Amino acid sequence: MLRFTEMFNGAGFAVDVYGARKYSTPFQEIMLLETEAFGKILVLDGAVQTTDRDEFVYHEMIVHVPLLTLGRKPEKILVIGGGDGGTVREVLKHDPERVDMVEIDREVVELCKREFPEISSGLSDERVSIYYEDGREFVRDKENEYDAIIVDCSDPTGPSAVLFSKDFYEDVKRALKEDGVFVTQSESPFAQRKEFLMIVSNLTKVFSTVRPYLVFIPSYPSGMWSFTFASNGKDPLTVSPEELSERIKDVVRRTSSKFKYYNLEIHYGAFAIPNFIIDEFKK
Amino acid sequence: MLRFTEMFNGAGFAVDVYGARKYSTPFQEIMLLETEAFGKILVLDGAVQTTDRDEFVYHEMIVHVPLLTLGRKPEKILVIGGGDGGTVREVLKHDPERVDMVEIDREVVELCKREFPEISSGLSDERVSIYYEDGREFVRDKENEYDAIIVDCSDPTGPSAVLFSKDFYEDVKRALKEDGVFVTQSESPFAQRKEFLMIVSNLTKVFSTVRPYLVFIPSYPSGMWSFTFASNGKDPLTVSPEELSERIKDVVRRTSSKFKYYNLEIHYGAFAIPNFIIDEFKK
Repeated sequence: MLRFTEMFNGAGFAVDVYGARKYSTPFQEIMLLETEAFGKILVLDGAVQTTDRDEFVYHEMIVHVPLLTLGRKPEKILVIGGGDGGTVREVLKHDPERVDMVEIDREVVELCKREFPEISSGLSDERVSIYYEDGREFVRDKENEYDAIIVDCSDPTGPSAVLFSKDFYEDVKRALKEDGVFVTQSESPFAQRKEFLMIVSNLTKVFSTVRPYLVFIPSYPSGMWSFTFASNGKDPLTVSPEELSERIKDVVRRTSSKFKYYNLEIHYGAFAIPNFIIDEFKK
Repeated sequence: MLRFTEMFNGAGFAVDVYGARKYSTPFQEIMLLETEAFGKILVLDGAVQTTDRDEFVYHEMIVHVPLLTLGRKPEKILVIGGGDGGTVREVLKHDPERVDMVEIDREVVELCKREFPEISSGLSDERVSIYYEDGREFVRDKENEYDAIIVDCSDPTGPSAVLFSKDFYEDVKRALKEDGVFVTQSESPFAQRKEFLMIVSNLTKVFSTVRPYLVFIPSYPSGMWSFTFASNGKDPLTVSPEELSERIKDVVRRTSSKFKYYNLEIHYGAFAIPNFIIDEFKK
């Protein structure tokens, strides 16, 4: 039995593998692992991105927290990255008029359409346009256009580095409508502390409301992952439980789907941040 | 470089090791690992128990949630297991008159006193009595004696199996004072789903209030760990934030210590349980 191990500074996630395929693209190295424990696993440049078993955590939590905070039917949503399609699948549950997805690496999308048919199922929806471009460039000339912008990308090393800069966030702010919401994956506060703090700090320079939140993703470094919500006013914590409960019911009723991770208590509870992380902000 | 890997059904935690010592006791195999990533690591029967780097999560969360729910100065507290001393260290912050610790394996305690001096620092406190006995037997003849009972033990395989049975919980209930509080470590709902559900189910047969809660422990299977609170009335979720905030301030003021994980938001937020776990309770 082969074993794949993803180590961060001497510790990490290990999984037994019974099949592995490798591909090189102009942007990155792709590995597709087959495992008993987590089903198929997509690995980019050595880092686990998506697994059959726990992808629902990442994709539900990056989408439903900001879109249920938005609190109205979105017209236009932008997803930057998200090549496996899981984020678009969840975004579609909010009945948008249109979704733009900007993914730099066409080969990731093609592979995921073949290998992760359930996760990528939304990519063929007629409301979805996929642009194989640099997400950084794509937002540069947009203004007041999107209800929500979601950055679902890899670590701030490699091709995604530019998606965490203050300059990029200024473009994002301009591309958002006045009451729009933004969310980005923001690394592990435990395993990638410096990167997490850099992201939150850059967002704070641009947006008036910035709120990191935490989720359990067993296949990611340390299992403690974060997303950071940002906006110019909308706040996930000031939506009342009664109102949020109605919004959740609407989505569940309309889509006949059930959330596997997200719920009312998780919406608020995910924003509880342990002291060792809060203390870092005070330094 | 050596690498230690703890696998659960084909996936798990890996850490690079630069030193390792092994001991056999009449009860279990002990391994003491030295690592850059997590400092010293105590391993019992192949399972990580305690690491220098993330022990604070386990020990703060198993202690402060129930004892700040109790809401009064405790006279007598019972810790079952807890050989590394971390639970007793946190318990002492609540100014109890007396702490009984019942640990079956004297050699674990002796080793931790030598190798984890900070974690085990409370074990020499004059209010603490250590009994090297079977915890299951110890509680059998106790009645209306403890303000809090805390089970800080290894997996429900090996020597700790009896500490998760309905019969044991009935003895615990008898050993508790009327308004006493109980907490047990209750495994990973992700990696040890069956064991987690068995524990919660057994507690529900005995106590009127049973509340599992979740914490991030990077060195444990899947990184998603649980504790379960139980009582005959006291409820961590019905303490008001104002009252809880005062209780926290009292502990911090009196002990001049700071919590590294636990805080007001974490107290409530830890009880937010993802749907995939809630759904299991409905089956």
